[in-house]
Amino acid sequence: MAKQFVDLSESPGGYSLLNDVQPLSARRLAQSALASFSVEGYGGTTTRVISEHAGLSAGALYTSFPSKEDILFLCAERAHKSALATLQSAAQIDGPAVRRVRNMMLQFTLWHAQNYMIARVCQYELAALTPDHHDVIARLRRGMESAMRVQIQTGVANGEFEVDDVDGLTLATLSLAIDVCRWFSPSGRMSAERLAETYADLVVRMVGSRTPDAAAGTAAPNTESVRA
Amino acid sequence: MAKQFVDLSESPGGYSLLNDVQPLSARRLAQSALASFSVEGYGGTTTRVISEHAGLSAGALYTSFPSKEDILFLCAERAHKSALATLQSAAQIDGPAVRRVRNMMLQFTLWHAQNYMIARVCQYELAALTPDHHDVIARLRRGMESAMRVQIQTGVANGEFEVDDVDGLTLATLSLAIDVCRWFSPSGRMSAERLAETYADLVVRMVGSRTPDAAAGTAAPNTESVRA
Repeated sequence: MAKQFVDLSESPGGYSLLNDVQPLSARRLAQSALASFSVEGYGGTTTRVISEHAGLSAGALYTSFPSKEDILFLCAERAHKSALATLQSAAQIDGPAVRRVRNMMLQFTLWHAQNYMIARVCQYELAALTPDHHDVIARLRRGMESAMRVQIQTGVANGEFEVDDVDGLTLATLSLAIDVCRWFSPSGRMSAERLAETYADLVVRMVGSRTPDAAAGTAAPNTESVRA
Repeated sequence: MAKQFVDLSESPGGYSLLNDVQPLSARRLAQSALASFSVEGYGGTTTRVISEHAGLSAGALYTSFPSKEDILFLCAERAHKSALATLQSAAQIDGPAVRRVRNMMLQFTLWHAQNYMIARVCQYELAALTPDHHDVIARLRRGMESAMRVQIQTGVANGEFEVDDVDGLTLATLSLAIDVCRWFSPSGRMSAERLAETYADLVVRMVGSRTPDAAAGTAAPNTESVRA
C-alpha cells in the first residue's frame, strides 16, 4: 500500500543533490531510498519499502531503476562528483600553496558537514556497489586524493611546506574532513562553519607551513559554491 | 541447516576481542554475527544466518542472547573498552604533555588499524543500539574525549601547546584516528605502524607544540599492549 509521499528536497544532509533527478517519480524513489539507507542501512532496506515511502506502488521502483543498487550508485556518484568539484574549485585561488590547501580543507569540511547524511551512506555502503560502479566511484576518489596531493607537493617543492610523508599527509587531510559525516549533526554543539575554520587552521599546521600567516583570509572566495 | 563453523579467533580486524566470550557457543555466535555485520550490515543480517554460520541450529542464538542487538552491544562494549584502555594506558608516561599526546595518537591509531573490522561495525551501527546500551557506549566515548582533552589542556596550561579551540582539536585528533577503521586494510599500501607514526607526528604539529623534539621516542613504552 503506497504511503503519503514526504518531499525531502529541502531536508538537511544532502538531499538537495538529488533535486534534479528526473522524472519526478525517480527523484521520489531516490529520496525515499536515501532516507531508508541512512536509518536501516542498505542491507536492511527493501525495494518494497523504498517504493511505498515514495508514495508509489510496490513494483514502481523497477520502472525507474534496474535494482536497488542502481539507486545507491546514483546517490554515490552525485555525492562524489559534488565533493570532488568542491575540492577542485577551492584550489582555484592565487597565491602561495598554503592558501589553496587551507581553502580546500575549509570547503571540503563544510561540504561533509552540510551533506553529512548522503556522505555517510556513501562512505558506509561502498562495498555494496557492483564492481563497475565501484570503479566509477574509485576514480572520483582518486581525483580527490590527486587534487590535494598536487597542492601539498607544490608547497613542498617550493619550500613552503615541511612534510616527511606526502601520501600519509594527503590521506590524513581528506580523512579528517570525511570523518565529519560520521558524527556531524546540525543540532550538535559545533557548527559547520566553526568546524571548517578549525580544521582549515589545523591543516596549515599539518603541512608544516613556514608562512602560516599567508593562509589568512581564505574563507570567502568559494564559500557560496558549496551551499547549493 | 547448520553449516560448518569457521573459527575466526585468529582472523585480523579485531575478532580477538571476542576470544574470552563464554561459553563457546556464545563466542561462535558473536564471531559469526560480527562477520555478517561487517559484510551485510546490521540491518541486513538475520538471526538465522548468524546461527547457521556459527554451526548451530536456527534457534540457538536465543539460548545465548536475548536478541541480535545484544550481540552488537557485546561487540561494541568490548571494542570501546579496549580502545579506551589503550588511550588511557598510552597516557601513563612521564615527561612533557607532548610526549603523552603523541603516544596516545600513536597507540589509538594503531588500535584502529589493527581492529579495523570490529571498530568499523561499531562506528557504523551505533544507531541500532537500544537507548540503554547506547548510553553505556556514549559514556565510554566521553571517556576517550576526556582522556585526550585533559592532556591537551595540560599542554596549553603549562605553555607547551598553542591551541585556539581545545574542543575542536580534541575532536579532530580522535576523529583522525577513528577514521582509519573506515579505509584501513592489512593488504593496503600503508602499514599500521607507518600510519601510526605519521599520525603521531601530525598530532605534535596539530597541538602547536613549542617543543616538538621533546615528543621523540614515544613509540616503545606501550606498543605491546595494543597487539593483544
